[in-house]
Amino acid sequence: MTTSSDTRPDLDFCAELGQQLRVDSVAMSDRAGSGHPTSSMSAADLIAVLMSRHLHWDLQSADNPHNDHLIFSKGHASPLYYAMLHAAGVIDEQELRTYRQLDSRLEGHPTPRIPPTDVATGSLGQGLPIGVGIALSGKELEQLPYRVWVLCGDSEMAEGSVWEAFQYAAWRGLDNLTAIIDVNRLGQTRETMLGHDVQAYADRATAFGWHPIIVDGHDVQAIDEAYDEAAGVSGKPTVIIARTLKGKGVKAVEDEPGKHGKPLEDAASAIQELGGFRDFEVDVQPPDDDSQPHRFRTQDHDRPAYEVGTEGSTREAYGAALAWLGATREDVVALDGEVSNSTHADTFADEQPDRYFEMFIAEQQMAAAAVGLGTRGWTAFASTFGAFWARAYDFVRMAAVSRADLRLCGSHAGVSIGADGPSQMALEDMASLRAIHGSVVLHPSDANQVTCLLEDMADRAGISYLRVLRGKTTVRTAPDEPIGIGGSRTVRQSEQDDVTILACGVTVDQAVQAADLLATQGITARVIDCYSVKPLDEDTVRRAAADTTALVTVEDHRPEGGLGDAVLEAVAESALRPTVHKLAVDVMPTSGTPEELMHAAGIDAESVADAVRILCTGRSGSEGKASL
Amino acid sequence: MTTSSDTRPDLDFCAELGQQLRVDSVAMSDRAGSGHPTSSMSAADLIAVLMSRHLHWDLQSADNPHNDHLIFSKGHASPLYYAMLHAAGVIDEQELRTYRQLDSRLEGHPTPRIPPTDVATGSLGQGLPIGVGIALSGKELEQLPYRVWVLCGDSEMAEGSVWEAFQYAAWRGLDNLTAIIDVNRLGQTRETMLGHDVQAYADRATAFGWHPIIVDGHDVQAIDEAYDEAAGVSGKPTVIIARTLKGKGVKAVEDEPGKHGKPLEDAASAIQELGGFRDFEVDVQPPDDDSQPHRFRTQDHDRPAYEVGTEGSTREAYGAALAWLGATREDVVALDGEVSNSTHADTFADEQPDRYFEMFIAEQQMAAAAVGLGTRGWTAFASTFGAFWARAYDFVRMAAVSRADLRLCGSHAGVSIGADGPSQMALEDMASLRAIHGSVVLHPSDANQVTCLLEDMADRAGISYLRVLRGKTTVRTAPDEPIGIGGSRTVRQSEQDDVTILACGVTVDQAVQAADLLATQGITARVIDCYSVKPLDEDTVRRAAADTTALVTVEDHRPEGGLGDAVLEAVAESALRPTVHKLAVDVMPTSGTPEELMHAAGIDAESVADAVRILCTGRSGSEGKASL
Repeated sequence: MTTSSDTRPDLDFCAELGQQLRVDSVAMSDRAGSGHPTSSMSAADLIAVLMSRHLHWDLQSADNPHNDHLIFSKGHASPLYYAMLHAAGVIDEQELRTYRQLDSRLEGHPTPRIPPTDVATGSLGQGLPIGVGIALSGKELEQLPYRVWVLCGDSEMAEGSVWEAFQYAAWRGLDNLTAIIDVNRLGQTRETMLGHDVQAYADRATAFGWHPIIVDGHDVQAIDEAYDEAAGVSGKPTVIIARTLKGKGVKAVEDEPGKHGKPLEDAASAIQELGGFRDFEVDVQPPDDDSQPHRFRTQDHDRPAYEVGTEGSTREAYGAALAWLGATREDVVALDGEVSNSTHADTFADEQPDRYFEMFIAEQQMAAAAVGLGTRGWTAFASTFGAFWARAYDFVRMAAVSRADLRLCGSHAGVSIGADGPSQMALEDMASLRAIHGSVVLHPSDANQVTCLLEDMADRAGISYLRVLRGKTTVRTAPDEPIGIGGSRTVRQSEQDDVTILACGVTVDQAVQAADLLATQGITARVIDCYSVKPLDEDTVRRAAADTTALVTVEDHRPEGGLGDAVLEAVAESALRPTVHKLAVDVMPTSGTPEELMHAAGIDAESVADAVRILCTGRSGSEGKASL
Repeated sequence: MTTSSDTRPDLDFCAELGQQLRVDSVAMSDRAGSGHPTSSMSAADLIAVLMSRHLHWDLQSADNPHNDHLIFSKGHASPLYYAMLHAAGVIDEQELRTYRQLDSRLEGHPTPRIPPTDVATGSLGQGLPIGVGIALSGKELEQLPYRVWVLCGDSEMAEGSVWEAFQYAAWRGLDNLTAIIDVNRLGQTRETMLGHDVQAYADRATAFGWHPIIVDGHDVQAIDEAYDEAAGVSGKPTVIIARTLKGKGVKAVEDEPGKHGKPLEDAASAIQELGGFRDFEVDVQPPDDDSQPHRFRTQDHDRPAYEVGTEGSTREAYGAALAWLGATREDVVALDGEVSNSTHADTFADEQPDRYFEMFIAEQQMAAAAVGLGTRGWTAFASTFGAFWARAYDFVRMAAVSRADLRLCGSHAGVSIGADGPSQMALEDMASLRAIHGSVVLHPSDANQVTCLLEDMADRAGISYLRVLRGKTTVRTAPDEPIGIGGSRTVRQSEQDDVTILACGVTVDQAVQAADLLATQGITARVIDCYSVKPLDEDTVRRAAADTTALVTVEDHRPEGGLGDAVLEAVAESALRPTVHKLAVDVMPTSGTPEELMHAAGIDAESVADAVRILCTGRSGSEGKASL
């Protein structure tokens, strides 16, 4: 495999480099007083050969589109990763000594704070699905020959998300993707389910449509040949199943249980046993390709606009707005979890089939693919029922650690979906997604708002979530109204408002009906459409708190963590602290019509009017009706 | 297979019954105006044969411990399920007509509101992992010969959770578990990844250690033989891979795309084509076993107690309390996600190895197994890092719909874990889990609290979450203090308190230090330990609101959805509405020491004291220090 013109380091060098990576891993963890040296030592030879002879990285330019991508899915092997970056000249000796210290880029688990790291890892089972997203970009969108390498631990093969990735990558034929499983047999507390049964891993990979290669993960020649073989496989992804020993090279820990996640007891001896410190540097090969990434064409496309007073569903508006964005921006791509005729991502898919990814019912892989596509500069929107984003919550959490851009749409929000019942109702989505650092949570009440908010999302970094409805709502927003992240829309207002009703999504219609009802009873209610739940338009909320005696919030969501809490937060420290009364879904819903279920949950117009009446007059609905 | 003494309905009957199930499914969805008749029709023969000749159900007693368990993982096939229960005499004709109506037990997707349903389904990929939990109970705990049958859709095989179940069930050798995959080829919008390639499913099952049987899912004899074969397989679970046609029996929809999730256009003709209404009733065989379920022995065991003033970690206290509960209660079982030496579930595992389940790194399967074990009456506690419960969030959401008892422990809460970095820090767990209907969220500050709260959790129905810490905290609670769900502990209080600091977990120590510091500066702070974040001790919070001018909340969690919001909620409608100032983690943490990270996040004693000082005096820390 080594020709005369081959300028790459030879295999003897790789073996020595492997020892260097081990030594540096041991030393790093020892200095830090924590870390995972043994998990690093098992994979050191795999990484030494990869970086010396197969990986293509232009380290002068982390943005070079031709760069390969390497994801340490077993993020706890960060000592190995940083030792590798040190050998590649990215990290100097001084920085290496800052491992796990405050302000260091070398965190306990890798994050993109240290280039060329694409994504944060450390929650196991996420690296491979994200790698699938990057490989999709390379093969289907950019159409560049870069390769995606993912180093996986054997313990994380227990995560279902890994098998979502196996299924999907094979179905897409991602032959630019290579998974490397470091089968060191030992997890944190015991042997894995499969131990050293590398054939079992190979059988599973084969059954899932991958090309498996079993190697001795400490035989540099076998590893080298495996990487060559992987590069030559066409039409399917390759997995290199490497039989390794945890703690390889140091007798006190090698293949020993109970040695996970802690520095070696006698690091000095271990380093000596490994042959002492070395100082090899590797000129990682730059990419040898200079082809231009594929570009898509933009087209003219009317911006969706809906006449005020008509009715429409915000999920249909999502599809239409996405199709418009897709036509006018070549960077927009879409993914959906096999419900595109429900979320209406199919509108985009019909118009831009080359930029649409059907992800089937695998929400973790979908979120991960969106993150992966985002690292390559694509503005990806991913959709499914809002309820099912709960399936990918850990991926969203980690996307925030990755400083990733992740744009989610969740349809079928709340009890207003009706007869399908609670399994299909998003009721905890705003709470869980508001808690994500730096997130944006949007819940438009009509179709025109969707277009504006989707446009904002496309330009917004970080994690954003658009919550849309199954049923139809009245279009109240004019197509040219300024609607944007952080805004709100005052639906009705007067100088004599007694009370303010704050609503979002389906409850805006209910709030308006309630205000109509209350008006006939002598109570004047301001109605604010808080389509931007996070960030909330706090100024408008505080003005309402100053102008009116009470705030009533109403949302088709659990009482915790949604609009009501956002409003409470907004007035928590203001000089005026009005009574805030929250209406939300505090029952376990069943099937029924949307109207029945909203009534049962106490979030329909009648419930809102009742709550306002009691606040304003101390009298319940029937009393109020009689006396007003 | 039919002997002379066989009193079971014969196969001709089964074929007719299959048609009845189809007709009833079509009629039910037609009346409701929604539903999934075609997904029901594909599996009708599989269910007809199962209920007539293989399922053992004592329908007089849903609690009979010998009953088989049947989970419709493809919960959208609820018409088939209810048609089956109708044929079994559980649902009368009148109730069948209430499908999908308000107040009907026959919801759009099955829930335990209609016995003998064990769990709610409708979020795909959950039935099989829950079935694994029930099968674990049957085989390992109850030691009864009942069987667990799970009807899966082919679309849901894309969910990673299904493969977590495949791996785990094989590893445990659950030969009492049979999965039936209804391979009808068509998902909601298109063909599945594998279409009708039943061999591919079989290859995957084989590679994962299962015994696969491929059948024509409309050949009642082949189905019958497959069930017999499944019952005879020893040492491994069986999967019956049934090639079926979606919409089988009605030409207008049979094997046609675009027919998912909607009533048939011409139900009357379809029913005619299926041979019209039938009225067969099936005497489902009762279990023929009357052996007693295995019981475990209880032992004497000291209740853990820690001396006030000592230091300890609440995670270690979790392990100790769990071991104590396990010794004194035979119904207590524990599960852990391969981090038992971190969560200290290993303390239980060491003492009660027969009631401990190592679930490896598969949080979805772990949550599902806990739900399954709960349906069999076991008081199951499941633990992993709090951050990684995000992986199973949809399972927790669905557990609420199942009215399941689910007891979770999440360790390594917050930035106070230190050097491992943000991927390992639970920072959104309280927000996401507070939003679950009826949930309890507990965050004890010391070891003695843990014992009391775990005891309460064991007796509490529904979903409860115990959040514990990596590091040590000071024991302030005496072993005999009354600590319980819904309570709080006032750490310091006087009649002259200027301000109240509300804390939980690690921030209680910080709050006390802050109060000490403030005392030297002339500010008297009440400190309340809100170990029960949901339900919050609202009376105590409101009393503090009445007694002091401001409330400062401090938590090692995101600002949204945690303690601060619970406190805001508690005072939202009270007559006294004090300023509430929330301190929480509103940065993306890095590595560092616990002290550094708490300081960087603004939740350490100094930050608390500063915030209080500004509230009370309008002056910042340094100014305050100078002038006080």
